[in-house]
Amino acid sequence: MVVYLIGAGPGNPELITLKAVKALNKADVVIYDRLANEKILEHAGEAKLIYVGKKAGEHYKSQDEINQIIINEAKDTSNNIIVRLKGGDPFVFGRGGEEILSLISEGIKFEVIPGVTSAIGVPTSLGLPVTHRGVATSFTVVTGHEDPTKNRKQVKWDYTADTIIVLMGIGKMKENTSEIMKYRDSKTPVCVIENGTLPNEKTIFGTLGDIGDKDINTPAILIVGNVIDVFKEIKGIK
Amino acid sequence: MVVYLIGAGPGNPELITLKAVKALNKADVVIYDRLANEKILEHAGEAKLIYVGKKAGEHYKSQDEINQIIINEAKDTSNNIIVRLKGGDPFVFGRGGEEILSLISEGIKFEVIPGVTSAIGVPTSLGLPVTHRGVATSFTVVTGHEDPTKNRKQVKWDYTADTIIVLMGIGKMKENTSEIMKYRDSKTPVCVIENGTLPNEKTIFGTLGDIGDKDINTPAILIVGNVIDVFKEIKGIK
Ligand SMILES: C[S@@+](CC[C@H](N)C(=O)[O-])C[C@H]1O[C@@H](n2cnc3c(N)ncnc32)[C@H](O)[C@@H]1O
Ligand SMILES: C[S@@+](CC[C@H](N)C(=O)[O-])C[C@H]1O[C@@H](n2cnc3c(N)ncnc32)[C@H](O)[C@@H]1O
Repeated sequence: MVVYLIGAGPGNPELITLKAVKALNKADVVIYDRLANEKILEHAGEAKLIYVGKKAGEHYKSQDEINQIIINEAKDTSNNIIVRLKGGDPFVFGRGGEEILSLISEGIKFEVIPGVTSAIGVPTSLGLPVTHRGVATSFTVVTGHEDPTKNRKQVKWDYTADTIIVLMGIGKMKENTSEIMKYRDSKTPVCVIENGTLPNEKTIFGTLGDIGDKDINTPAILIVGNVIDVFKEIKGIK
Repeated sequence: MVVYLIGAGPGNPELITLKAVKALNKADVVIYDRLANEKILEHAGEAKLIYVGKKAGEHYKSQDEINQIIINEAKDTSNNIIVRLKGGDPFVFGRGGEEILSLISEGIKFEVIPGVTSAIGVPTSLGLPVTHRGVATSFTVVTGHEDPTKNRKQVKWDYTADTIIVLMGIGKMKENTSEIMKYRDSKTPVCVIENGTLPNEKTIFGTLGDIGDKDINTPAILIVGNVIDVFKEIKGIK
């Protein structure tokens, strides 16, 4: 018996790895959240599917409840291969570490299969280079939606890396960009990518100063820095 | 005719995406550097293979020469699908942006297929979470080997993200860690992963203060921050 913690990639169902597909093929159970693309579940054939993400009008499962569901399935002797499937990479704001620690506390065997994270895969697939010689030799990936219960000194947005990539930042776009503007010019180019690698993908250009006024749908990531100018050059945008 | 710029993943040949495999399957030519794993080339069947990486005792191809090789293959009317294959993700210190700009200047069509970057895929596959609730809500990926010709103010290592991930940093480990120690305690836990996701993978633990004295083989990445303590807990290491 083994629990595979698997990254499903950023959305496009072909951006999953061969290794993840092989694990899904042999799965007895797949425990998944809201996925960018449910086509990925087709690799699991006849496996039992357990949805643990948000559902309109229903109680939202806590991380403890999810951990317990995974443990119960792992302890069910009729299951041999349990897959815990997550969007992107399981450790990029995916709470994979917490799930693993709960498995360990029960002595349950696990393996982690990395995935293409939306933080990098979404810009890359569009031709937006998060690093570029002479322009960006570092990038920071950060959550724009801090855990409100977190006991930690107020988060500062003084990230010094050349490129900043903000996940889960749409709901607090104005707050976040005004924090970043304490350290960067309001004219710094930015770009938001909605539904990256999916058919309804959309790219929105702006600056730190004006992106907060634009209409944006989720899921989306914000990318800040001069690599946006390289991206515009690549796209032929003035 | 189209040039696919493809990320091959961090090393393990099963950590390539389905989309990349499909492109390799139809490739007429594959232009590749030193790859973590040459098994990936098997997906290209009978395609012509052009190696443009370093070779012992031979002249090392410049980026301009590589760009020209890709352009020549794209202009060769007997080729329909040209694959430019890179380790990890093509835009994480992969010079993919430069290659695309050179294709654009020649009016050549391209598509980019993201890959699992070693920066995230290598720690994830070991069970090392680069983000972890209450411990790390941001991470920075940076090169430890700055372009010496770069006209830019001296690189500072004052990265404020919780986790720092250094690629290409083994040759300058002591210089880099002493720079980081200007901003972080010398006892900050670190970990180096050599040949991640490959059979000869090796993990080396230490601190910012002592990792520079250890024997390390390349390719390897350095990970700095308190997520290393979470990783030790996961591994059962005291
Ligand atoms: C809870 S985080 C999980 C991230 C995931 N583990 C990963 O590595 O991509 C969810 C956030 O990822 C980003 N995201 C995920 N899929 C996306 C997509 N297809 N397009 C744009 N952003 C996406 C959004 O910022 C979203 O708020
Ligand atoms: C020129 S960079 C290219 C990175 C690549 N584009 C990526 O996204 O992984 C090469 C660096 O990646 C890291 N690297 C690549 N493969 C690795 C592996 N299997 N294990 C550890 N580090 C690796 C090392 O730091 C190496 O110096």
